[in-house]
Amino acid sequence: MEQLKTVNLAILGVGTIGRAVVQLIHEQSDRIAEQTGIQLTIRYAMARSIERVKAAGLRPEQAITSAEPALADPNVDVVVEVLGGEEPAASIMHAALERGKHVVTANKEALAKHFAALSAIARANNRALLFEASVGGGIPLMASLRQILATNRVSQLRGIVNGTTNFILTQMAEHSTPYHEALQEAQRLGYAEPDPTADVEGYDAAYKLAILASLAAKKQIHPENIERVGITQVTPEEIAEARRRGGVIKLLAQATEENGTWRLRVAPEFVPGDSLLAHVRLNFNAIEVTGDRVGTVVLYGQGAGPLPTASAIVSDVLDAIRFGGALTPAIAPA
Amino acid sequence: MEQLKTVNLAILGVGTIGRAVVQLIHEQSDRIAEQTGIQLTIRYAMARSIERVKAAGLRPEQAITSAEPALADPNVDVVVEVLGGEEPAASIMHAALERGKHVVTANKEALAKHFAALSAIARANNRALLFEASVGGGIPLMASLRQILATNRVSQLRGIVNGTTNFILTQMAEHSTPYHEALQEAQRLGYAEPDPTADVEGYDAAYKLAILASLAAKKQIHPENIERVGITQVTPEEIAEARRRGGVIKLLAQATEENGTWRLRVAPEFVPGDSLLAHVRLNFNAIEVTGDRVGTVVLYGQGAGPLPTASAIVSDVLDAIRFGGALTPAIAPA
Repeated sequence: MEQLKTVNLAILGVGTIGRAVVQLIHEQSDRIAEQTGIQLTIRYAMARSIERVKAAGLRPEQAITSAEPALADPNVDVVVEVLGGEEPAASIMHAALERGKHVVTANKEALAKHFAALSAIARANNRALLFEASVGGGIPLMASLRQILATNRVSQLRGIVNGTTNFILTQMAEHSTPYHEALQEAQRLGYAEPDPTADVEGYDAAYKLAILASLAAKKQIHPENIERVGITQVTPEEIAEARRRGGVIKLLAQATEENGTWRLRVAPEFVPGDSLLAHVRLNFNAIEVTGDRVGTVVLYGQGAGPLPTASAIVSDVLDAIRFGGALTPAIAPA
Repeated sequence: MEQLKTVNLAILGVGTIGRAVVQLIHEQSDRIAEQTGIQLTIRYAMARSIERVKAAGLRPEQAITSAEPALADPNVDVVVEVLGGEEPAASIMHAALERGKHVVTANKEALAKHFAALSAIARANNRALLFEASVGGGIPLMASLRQILATNRVSQLRGIVNGTTNFILTQMAEHSTPYHEALQEAQRLGYAEPDPTADVEGYDAAYKLAILASLAAKKQIHPENIERVGITQVTPEEIAEARRRGGVIKLLAQATEENGTWRLRVAPEFVPGDSLLAHVRLNFNAIEVTGDRVGTVVLYGQGAGPLPTASAIVSDVLDAIRFGGALTPAIAPA
């Protein structure tokens, strides 16, 4: 029997995702300890108030209302950043890496905007910066991409990376639902926010594409350099016309390299019926990765949701502990 | 600039896959060294004759005609086993792990039949036993499954894992080609062997399913415990009937756990049109993994071919060096 290694976590943010991480650790830490020898312990959880931390099923002594106590505590091994948004998340991740902690994040915006700087500080300190949950929820996309990139030049990425808009477009295509009704249905089911701008205008997809393309290019690609068209102007006529041509309209995120230059675009596009992407329905995601040796690989699954996302985060935490800084990708500045 | 770490490889077998590995290393070792600090060096290559090794583009002093010199050389870090078949491959892998070498294999038969014993000896010696290329060619299936299994109970695996039979069934479905003509076409294109038994009778798929199911069950599932029906009896009438019902016939490999018991089966099955698996055409593979937290994830790509397979093998070699024995799964005896 190997000896248990206690790993202290600080979970920053106890929204839907943070609470799911707490719950997964509470439910699975014994099984994980048995299988890996790693005893996951939540040392801190941060929220705006101690009440919110307690509501997530944690004890008051675990609650912090700023990141500082967690960053200052040398016993914290891994910082799980699930605050969302650019700041203070990016600065906190930077500080955590600087102080020698591994960082696991689900934050696509902060990562897309600060990928090179965060990767550099992680590598300088030989710490893991892992972000499986930032794109594609529980789909093992980063694990796959890491493996493919070890031996392939990836010159094209193409996919459906936003479940909300894919759900809306599926309703429009399959039930001839008008856009605004389909959006309301998505909001009713909790797939879309009360303010749906980030999804329907393609910002969310652009952040995710920036992360994927930065990995393939091995240099930072800023989201503002991505051409972005949302789905609000997609008409029932366009959708009917696509069906007549044997395909569908999908919000595609695409990155293509030609002669060292990357072209990046998020926009509604016609997808012919013989493409696997045409058959990705409802709030599912699928990402097509084309490498010069493996050819085209597609990864498909639930792109969001607390359970898959928390599952990806905890898996990243275990990898950070077992494999450390060697997993952190090198991302050059733009 | 980090210092280069020289890693000595022994490549056992210089058939189609072995030669592709040699070529990949010759073409990419500089780029790999630059990106990872690992200098891959082919110390030995084994074949029946020195002539065959030279024909693979290697020097006579690299050629061996038995595994022994490679196993006896303490400078060999990683043994790449691409001999195929149960023996002597299984015994050689066992001996290599026992002598403290990492093993990377593409050999589904030897692994399916000796998974528990090989995993045990690898773990006892803290060495990597990696096998991404054994199922699904370059599809990052093992990397994905490893990540999913860290935080999920996987109770169902379902997929198209044999490209040859999928090509034949696609020709039968899309061009009404009779079985024997479709088989001849597959042979002409090099997808099927002159003796196609291993593919068309489902043995190849059963070995692959045994490996996947063993990983999910965390205990060895022997291929002989898999119910196996090939595609030789699939009739044009069944295929036409499937089309009328809006679907297709696919050779599905399926493993399902219920109350601790795994049911395993390889057989031609009806797949409805709303399943992604129905849209996997030609010699492509796709594997559906269902976990209790991530839900259903599908991985799709070229399931065979020298380039994708070599790409998976070299990626495994790099992982073996960087992450070592911690990657080796624990597989209990049956």
